[in-house]
Amino acid sequence: MSGTGRTRLREVGEDSLLTRFRDLAAAALNDQVLVGPGDDAAVMRLADGRLLLLTCDMMVEEIHFRRAWATPEQIGWKAMAQNLSDIAAMGGEPGFAVSSVAAPGDADREVVEGIARGLISCASNFGAVLVGGDLVGSRGPIVVDVAVTGFAEERLLLCRSGARPGEAIAVTGALGASAAGLAALRQGLAGDPDPQVVRALRAHRQPVPRLAEGRAIAASRRASAMMDLSDGLADDLPRLCASSAVGARVWLAQIPIDDSCEPLAAGIGTDPLALAVSGGEDYELLFTCEPAAAEEIRAATGTRVTVIGEVVAGEGVVWIGADGAPVSVGRGFDHFAGAE
Amino acid sequence: MSGTGRTRLREVGEDSLLTRFRDLAAAALNDQVLVGPGDDAAVMRLADGRLLLLTCDMMVEEIHFRRAWATPEQIGWKAMAQNLSDIAAMGGEPGFAVSSVAAPGDADREVVEGIARGLISCASNFGAVLVGGDLVGSRGPIVVDVAVTGFAEERLLLCRSGARPGEAIAVTGALGASAAGLAALRQGLAGDPDPQVVRALRAHRQPVPRLAEGRAIAASRRASAMMDLSDGLADDLPRLCASSAVGARVWLAQIPIDDSCEPLAAGIGTDPLALAVSGGEDYELLFTCEPAAAEEIRAATGTRVTVIGEVVAGEGVVWIGADGAPVSVGRGFDHFAGAE
Repeated sequence: MSGTGRTRLREVGEDSLLTRFRDLAAAALNDQVLVGPGDDAAVMRLADGRLLLLTCDMMVEEIHFRRAWATPEQIGWKAMAQNLSDIAAMGGEPGFAVSSVAAPGDADREVVEGIARGLISCASNFGAVLVGGDLVGSRGPIVVDVAVTGFAEERLLLCRSGARPGEAIAVTGALGASAAGLAALRQGLAGDPDPQVVRALRAHRQPVPRLAEGRAIAASRRASAMMDLSDGLADDLPRLCASSAVGARVWLAQIPIDDSCEPLAAGIGTDPLALAVSGGEDYELLFTCEPAAAEEIRAATGTRVTVIGEVVAGEGVVWIGADGAPVSVGRGFDHFAGAE
Repeated sequence: MSGTGRTRLREVGEDSLLTRFRDLAAAALNDQVLVGPGDDAAVMRLADGRLLLLTCDMMVEEIHFRRAWATPEQIGWKAMAQNLSDIAAMGGEPGFAVSSVAAPGDADREVVEGIARGLISCASNFGAVLVGGDLVGSRGPIVVDVAVTGFAEERLLLCRSGARPGEAIAVTGALGASAAGLAALRQGLAGDPDPQVVRALRAHRQPVPRLAEGRAIAASRRASAMMDLSDGLADDLPRLCASSAVGARVWLAQIPIDDSCEPLAAGIGTDPLALAVSGGEDYELLFTCEPAAAEEIRAATGTRVTVIGEVVAGEGVVWIGADGAPVSVGRGFDHFAGAE
């Protein structure tokens, strides 16, 4: 509480506020809504029995991106990609997207056109279609909001709430590349030709939503819960656990760390594991399944899948170090803490 | 063009930019998309033959609202209402909504909660359901973006492009009340108990999307084109005409002016007709139909419907004064012109 008796957003924390909104919205849902606020996307039953998915994600200049660190096209791409990743996380197919952009009157026309081009380019790459938008003036930072619809089959839908004790916890790909890219930018390495730096920058600026992998995991019918890693494992896994009313144990030594983390972590005073665990914006998929199913799912996705822990009864995530003892890990980014 | 050779947004104008984005997006549409960017909502064909509508609208603090002039609940209501009005304008039924909100860390929690409450309250009032959202930090103004899905039947769909020469141009309700409300706020009359002031303030802060009227007009099958009046007749009618490749003649004396305009216009140095023609944010419906059908449509909507002009061949809108001679009317609000 602040001195005036009012509570300011940065003192509340994003998760607490989102929980409050979820409760407000939940009271007004109807029986068409299978999954309301709180999962990667909302899920509604259409008249023909198919499921409609709907999600939105907003990016604000100086909080989520800097114009000095990404081209307008990359900003637009990322705004679309993070929404498509939410569709991937439900095992869905992307449908149609709309985007609203706020920009100051003194912004270059090329900036806003570039953002539009990036939105369209990303959508087209992954089977989505940008069908509309809004463009408004602002006296503040550039803001890009995207809303995406998707479609899914009810028997294949994967939510955050399906994890059960005894199951394995797995991730696609390797983690930390996006945080390594941000580390490179902070170190002024934007023009560095080193292949690891180039890879990390690309992961940070133009993430790839795991749509095919999400559908393959869903189609395998062997996974029980799924979400995408947008804020980092340290923030996101506790959310999956809370949705499923379970706990988790994660073996830090098992976490697949992207190769680009090694050369880039030291320059910002951290270590590769921290980038992989707390970095965020990797948009890899985090899912749970029977331990025996992990290999089958790996084969179905055709990509790297790594078991990093196990679902346990209870609550909370215990991070286990190489010596078998619990260690504490840093949490990721709280938007309000960073917003002055 | 600016001195540096770059074009800034405020020099381009919103319509010109939106046309450019429309062209960019249009190249990436597929055959599921019946109506892409440029109408009140995009229209896509679902697997079962029904139509999915999708639209978004963003509101930025100090451009579209001021916290001193509206409660958080009213800000949330209006953000939802303007989207539902876009669904109404297609003759659709509202479906599901998501909303992204950016707010600075020092904003009161109550402000953001109030906005959420307003979003939910408006959605619930008109048969829509808020199913998700995003809440992000910002160092700038509060931004509220809403995206709404809707559903429609193909045989009843009404777009902006269907107007034909010889048809009548009509509007629901009366125009100018929202602008009169803004005029009241500018004159410091927020607490004035005069019923006209109260009505105008309510129209400005908590507009009512004409969903039932939009469906009734569509169901009558007598209208040929429709849109909602969000930016004012002087801006919006030329858009409908451009979409339909027609021109229009409007008899200014026929325009239904809301009663609240008379007492409130003088205080801001304008006249009631200017508020009704150029004010914007009335969210009444503008439509075209055979002249003989206007009475039938009026009966179907159960509300005031007024014929204000006629569709003509050619292009552009001619505004006809009481003496039968053309007069020029002021255009509404360009967001970028107002954004520094």
